[in-house]
Amino acid sequence: MNIPFNKPHFTGNETTYIKQAVSSQKISGNGIFTKKCQRFFEESYGFKKALLTTSCTDALEMASILIDIKEGDEVIMPSYTFVSTANAFVLRGAKIIFCDSKSDHPGIDEDKIEGLVTSKTKAIVPVHYAGTACDMYKIMSIADKHGLYVIEDAAQAIESYYTFPNGEKKALGSIGHLAAFSFHETKNIICGEGGLLAVNDDQFIERAEIIWEKGTNRSAFFRGEIDKYGWVDIGSSFLPSDINAAFLWAQLENLTKIQQKRISIWNKYHDDLKNVNLQLQKTPEYATNNAHMFFVVCKNGKERKELIKHLSTDSIGAVFHYLSLHKSPYYANKYNGKELENSDHYSDCLVRLPLFFDLTLLEQESIVSSIQTFFSK
Amino acid sequence: MNIPFNKPHFTGNETTYIKQAVSSQKISGNGIFTKKCQRFFEESYGFKKALLTTSCTDALEMASILIDIKEGDEVIMPSYTFVSTANAFVLRGAKIIFCDSKSDHPGIDEDKIEGLVTSKTKAIVPVHYAGTACDMYKIMSIADKHGLYVIEDAAQAIESYYTFPNGEKKALGSIGHLAAFSFHETKNIICGEGGLLAVNDDQFIERAEIIWEKGTNRSAFFRGEIDKYGWVDIGSSFLPSDINAAFLWAQLENLTKIQQKRISIWNKYHDDLKNVNLQLQKTPEYATNNAHMFFVVCKNGKERKELIKHLSTDSIGAVFHYLSLHKSPYYANKYNGKELENSDHYSDCLVRLPLFFDLTLLEQESIVSSIQTFFSK
Repeated sequence: MNIPFNKPHFTGNETTYIKQAVSSQKISGNGIFTKKCQRFFEESYGFKKALLTTSCTDALEMASILIDIKEGDEVIMPSYTFVSTANAFVLRGAKIIFCDSKSDHPGIDEDKIEGLVTSKTKAIVPVHYAGTACDMYKIMSIADKHGLYVIEDAAQAIESYYTFPNGEKKALGSIGHLAAFSFHETKNIICGEGGLLAVNDDQFIERAEIIWEKGTNRSAFFRGEIDKYGWVDIGSSFLPSDINAAFLWAQLENLTKIQQKRISIWNKYHDDLKNVNLQLQKTPEYATNNAHMFFVVCKNGKERKELIKHLSTDSIGAVFHYLSLHKSPYYANKYNGKELENSDHYSDCLVRLPLFFDLTLLEQESIVSSIQTFFSK
Repeated sequence: MNIPFNKPHFTGNETTYIKQAVSSQKISGNGIFTKKCQRFFEESYGFKKALLTTSCTDALEMASILIDIKEGDEVIMPSYTFVSTANAFVLRGAKIIFCDSKSDHPGIDEDKIEGLVTSKTKAIVPVHYAGTACDMYKIMSIADKHGLYVIEDAAQAIESYYTFPNGEKKALGSIGHLAAFSFHETKNIICGEGGLLAVNDDQFIERAEIIWEKGTNRSAFFRGEIDKYGWVDIGSSFLPSDINAAFLWAQLENLTKIQQKRISIWNKYHDDLKNVNLQLQKTPEYATNNAHMFFVVCKNGKERKELIKHLSTDSIGAVFHYLSLHKSPYYANKYNGKELENSDHYSDCLVRLPLFFDLTLLEQESIVSSIQTFFSK
């Protein structure tokens, strides 16, 4: 039995919809399936505007252009995140101010954000790691107080929610001024490579569409609002092919089924491993669990290395995750902040277990059993 | 009979290959079909390295990062081109120096380039309009003399060639230091939205792969050349999903058949319209014709407007093309060069006729007949 870390799930209708897209005579961006997906996201999660992108990276780049990042602007984000969270802002000239993770979760330590705000700070980028909400009430309050934008990196956070202290429950990605989602093959809902920009602040809606369409007012032209379109702004080709949107639509139709299966796998891991000597994933009271990922945290780097090797010997693909960005070859000499102990700890000790729709009970039992064997030694 | 301007052609194997990509358990970037396509391009056209991208726009952005465009660098390109040719460099801070088109072809007037070179010039970006080669010997000579990079915008130029004065014949995209192709649904070979960066200068190969992989050395890691990968440079998620590559592969397998059909359509247009009072497309002796487009040039804007309207009344989708970028809302107040008469002429007078694989003889005859009727009035 060979259990990979991830296996993309095929719901069955993907290629049927791709053929429909071809029959519609439009497989470039903003075709019928793109519009279906965008409407779904707007209606399901309350985004004011949803725009599919070729990746979450590209959605973050759109956000960076929209908030008009310039040379020297500062952007606060966790160090324990994917390079794209930072690169999207570095490409526009920003200085990245890295914040530590919480001791009990890899997400940004909300209590350490305000100490990093300066007169140059333009935005906070919380990353909902493993789909677990950051404390958005705290973050939005800091942003309001200092006049900052909040861009949610919701790459892993589809179908995940946050409850405010007043009891209001909102979908992740609908709270910050802007948010970015991923449909990369390792995510809950996929199209290989793909993403989404969610716009929640009215001031960005019109320009978002222009930047998305290579800096042209083409969308307004096709709606008949103007009589010719042209170059009006910077921008890029952020639209995915309708082939990708057609694939994504087949997945979205099965969202409930996919989520039920992932949550049942997640719950079994949690039940079966709670007596093992490992730090397990916690879901704060204000958050929900979207079962994007099941991670465990070893005591130290040595133990993690041995555990991954042990699982690999049993043909199980368990993998570590990010390396602290403030220590990366690219940023180490640009970073002049404090040590970020928790970020480094997760860099050294976190392991992700296989969690995908087609994981069988037998496979999961063999993973659990392999971990139990390792820790019983 | 309703004849659209374009209809994406489905060769038949696209969804079979997409299913194969899913079965391979990898539909993110750089999967089996991405590698197949890239090898095909390297072997067929002599590129030193080919990297699929999510669009031609993105390939141009990669080129702009690779030649290290900085604030104030100047880049020479035709004004009669798509916004992305310019935006890719503007995003990195470049000033665009627009050059006029030739009087007998919308391509850049090679004889006017050298007069635009200054100490700040970093690159020339010739656009092979309609797939017709620019005079690359002239352009490469100017670049050599002044130490400039040449980035071919070969968006429309697949399967098109240039013959040097010494008789050497090379594929477009293999001559400049870098080149960008498009597989947008309107191109000869398509995947909805998609592109390709061709790298012909060794100095860019390693970094191109890093920028492509979000600024990480992930590709080297997967080849086993390094033991962990991390953030080493700026970059973005320039890789398309393997779903798109699978679609593209089905098209590439039919390249010869597609080209034969397009060329026969092109030839029929040329034969049937040569006696009509219109400027027809010319192919210089040094160039080949890849039948990407069939365009005609009217005497003035009024005639073009009437011709497009006449064709539309006959349910034929004929369309104009670019608007001179130096006069665009975005760039007009940044442009301080000369009037570009030929560029403006093509902006006002050029019309593209339907040209796609599934265009029937009957349809083409009705298009020709409609044009003949218009000009016989």
